[in-house]
Amino acid sequence: MQSSLLKYRQAVMVLRTAGGLLRPARPMSSSAVAEPAGPSIRTDSVPGPRSKQLMEEANKKQLPHGIYFFADYSKSSGNYIVDVDGNTLLDMFMQISSLPFGYNHPALQKVAKSKEFLEMSINRPALGVCPPSDWVDRLNASLLSVAPKGLSRVQTMMCGSCANENAIKMLFMRYMAKQRAGRPVSQQELDSTMLNEPPGTPRLSILSFKRSFHGRTLGVLSCTRSKAIHKLDVPAFQWPAVDFPAYKYPLEQHQEHNAKQEKLSLAQVEETVNRQRATEPVAGLIVEPILAEGGDIHARPEYFRALRSLCSKLDVPLLVDEVQTGGGLCGTYWAHEQWGLDSPPDAVTFSKRTLLGGIYFSDNLVPDQQYRVYNTWLGEPSKVMLLEAVIRTIKEEKLMDSVLEAGTALTKGLEGLSQRYPQLINSPRGLGIMCAVDFADTNSRNEAVQRLRNKGIHTGGCGEVGLRFRPALIFKEKHAKLFLETFDSVLKSMAK
Amino acid sequence: MQSSLLKYRQAVMVLRTAGGLLRPARPMSSSAVAEPAGPSIRTDSVPGPRSKQLMEEANKKQLPHGIYFFADYSKSSGNYIVDVDGNTLLDMFMQISSLPFGYNHPALQKVAKSKEFLEMSINRPALGVCPPSDWVDRLNASLLSVAPKGLSRVQTMMCGSCANENAIKMLFMRYMAKQRAGRPVSQQELDSTMLNEPPGTPRLSILSFKRSFHGRTLGVLSCTRSKAIHKLDVPAFQWPAVDFPAYKYPLEQHQEHNAKQEKLSLAQVEETVNRQRATEPVAGLIVEPILAEGGDIHARPEYFRALRSLCSKLDVPLLVDEVQTGGGLCGTYWAHEQWGLDSPPDAVTFSKRTLLGGIYFSDNLVPDQQYRVYNTWLGEPSKVMLLEAVIRTIKEEKLMDSVLEAGTALTKGLEGLSQRYPQLINSPRGLGIMCAVDFADTNSRNEAVQRLRNKGIHTGGCGEVGLRFRPALIFKEKHAKLFLETFDSVLKSMAK
Repeated sequence: MQSSLLKYRQAVMVLRTAGGLLRPARPMSSSAVAEPAGPSIRTDSVPGPRSKQLMEEANKKQLPHGIYFFADYSKSSGNYIVDVDGNTLLDMFMQISSLPFGYNHPALQKVAKSKEFLEMSINRPALGVCPPSDWVDRLNASLLSVAPKGLSRVQTMMCGSCANENAIKMLFMRYMAKQRAGRPVSQQELDSTMLNEPPGTPRLSILSFKRSFHGRTLGVLSCTRSKAIHKLDVPAFQWPAVDFPAYKYPLEQHQEHNAKQEKLSLAQVEETVNRQRATEPVAGLIVEPILAEGGDIHARPEYFRALRSLCSKLDVPLLVDEVQTGGGLCGTYWAHEQWGLDSPPDAVTFSKRTLLGGIYFSDNLVPDQQYRVYNTWLGEPSKVMLLEAVIRTIKEEKLMDSVLEAGTALTKGLEGLSQRYPQLINSPRGLGIMCAVDFADTNSRNEAVQRLRNKGIHTGGCGEVGLRFRPALIFKEKHAKLFLETFDSVLKSMAK
Repeated sequence: MQSSLLKYRQAVMVLRTAGGLLRPARPMSSSAVAEPAGPSIRTDSVPGPRSKQLMEEANKKQLPHGIYFFADYSKSSGNYIVDVDGNTLLDMFMQISSLPFGYNHPALQKVAKSKEFLEMSINRPALGVCPPSDWVDRLNASLLSVAPKGLSRVQTMMCGSCANENAIKMLFMRYMAKQRAGRPVSQQELDSTMLNEPPGTPRLSILSFKRSFHGRTLGVLSCTRSKAIHKLDVPAFQWPAVDFPAYKYPLEQHQEHNAKQEKLSLAQVEETVNRQRATEPVAGLIVEPILAEGGDIHARPEYFRALRSLCSKLDVPLLVDEVQTGGGLCGTYWAHEQWGLDSPPDAVTFSKRTLLGGIYFSDNLVPDQQYRVYNTWLGEPSKVMLLEAVIRTIKEEKLMDSVLEAGTALTKGLEGLSQRYPQLINSPRGLGIMCAVDFADTNSRNEAVQRLRNKGIHTGGCGEVGLRFRPALIFKEKHAKLFLETFDSVLKSMAK
């Protein structure tokens, strides 16, 4: 795994040094926020009594959630979150991986204090109706400045589910436009769709992977196959799902097994697409670069290159869901940029660390009429303003370099610990700082999350047995070392 | 229609004077923003050349939308929007009815300048994981302070589609919990839902009304029946839809006809729910207080009271979609508060003028486990902070009173004009400032929207022939008069 990782990283370095999208615009400067020297825990365990009291109140007023603790955001800074009981934790989870720069970053403070940010916050436009004068400039300076190669259009949305829902709508529309081959929409189509019936409402499907997660609204939930608790009791479309390669890690040490698994998966894709033609044809395939909620399942670039080719051969558009992998934590702004594709995905969706949802897409996915992929807000300019500062700061401070350094330290450390505690943890893996390790079972994973939190390290689980790390882009090697020492002591105490 | 309207309004006045939720907290103060004296148009038509140029650029970078014009939000104020060509328009559309107070309102400026707003903007928490310390207080001071009677819980979401998607998920979960009657979830259910198959993925439906609009993601799009363009080419669940009463307006002048139509609609609901039991049982019914996108179809409170009773009898939870009717423009914060229900709806969804989406719901809709209705952000604290100021200002400045005054003036004026130009417009109707009038055909409606815009009045269409008005809550009688004069001249020019 290690040498495989290093190979990626070297390739990424080469790419970027050669003039990639994230080449530093200026020499590295330091706008990093002042941080505490390390975690400090004042209560017997986290959550402390004040958090517990607030949870009880919240659970009477909202849906009861599995809240970890209540936080004091005015006291939090950089990589450290402070809770309402005065505990300071190193945050390696970052609001389910949705905060790019941790807490109270100066670059974002500056934007949020500006007159323009205030105006966009209180006069929020409906972007499909009356966009602000600088909207196109803002897109150019933010999302379009890091557009995946080959995709020159972007549509902002509100969140990840919404991005994926609208992306698959575009896939369905593209499929039907091809079927019509220039024929105008018929009255029968218009009438029948009002009854949810064909031909206007076609029987089409989206192909996804088992263990994938693409959101929780009903369309994308039909693609999601991560956990039963995400899906139970909710009606779903009868869409197909195929096996993701059943990799063994480290990837490099199981080349033969892994290549065979990839072939099996690709054969399933082809067979399923062909079988579906008779019933509910596949209008598109959706895949995450790393199956995150499903347990941080990393794959080889070789697989994705083959998948891209296969999709082209089968005329099935490829939708890459970068909601969790995008935004720089993998060491490139988009994880799929490390696959070495000959031709780009047909669409790429994003959210979380990009601060708002959205879709990059190719020209051939533009619907033939306005108002077909639409909603009231269509995103939000104030989020795009913050994102602009994030992207500029990534470049100025060469944060992709430090992400790779910190990620290497973290993954190497996890490798070392898994050799020391093989009965407890296995399969250390990472791309940039998007790292994970598996526990022997769910209980011990949950136990580790709690023990880490009690020692001032905030992480989260994923899949059945995964412990995932989702630190901010300002997470450095020193933070990785601090975590690894604590994790060592936690594992030692658990091994007893 | 007029006397029916007045009756509502009187009843609403009585309700509020008697100590309703929106009783003014303090004597009326004036924080209204300075406004231009009236519209002014500098270009031959709206959009002007600068807007057109920006549209062209935007259409190359995004999905091509039907943008009306690009706006200069720093110059816009109160009820007036200024476009990039220097035109000033009286805005009676307010970003598809999503801005409660128009532009640059002092109460919102104050919030947006605060330290707390800045912190919540740049440290946006994942609310299911690490909410801010004051989260419950904020909910109490905002959404829960205007909670519909009988609904003491609220879950924030991102937008209206997301609110409705998650609300119907709660209805499905409630249905299955009832079916289980305390039996634990079986392994077969857990396994089958991973394949999108029963019993874990049940075959259930949501009943909606023809001409309704509930959003555009795939679950709620299956409920939406407004226009073919919203639905064409997108797979849908085979859920049932029944006729909304085919009212004649003014409602009061067609009592016999309207009562008969209501009975027909209710009979369809009952018959459909009973028929579905054998195939895809109805887990809930979703309805808008005014079918807005479908053409501003107003109904009588009598109908909704009968519908509530019928739903109780059939054991079908009632979900009231107040995305477009909520937030005060109907003269009460929620439109359904004017129905005089004996028992509350089971859930009420909102978005647009509440600045973020969400769901009020009864205790019996709380799922039996955490993490079943969930997503990364689950709403946004900074939006709730703005909403808190909106609700406080509504009370302090008695805006529900002025909404009723302005709405009466607007509806009365529309009634007068429809008597003067019966060949052009008909069916004037309104609840508060949520007003509309129908044109003889789509072309003349579109023509009127354009002519109004060229004269400095910004409105929007709805349904096939409706012209809808969605002004801000600071829209006063004087603005109504100004509009009516312009509309008169437009109709006069069209009548020639």
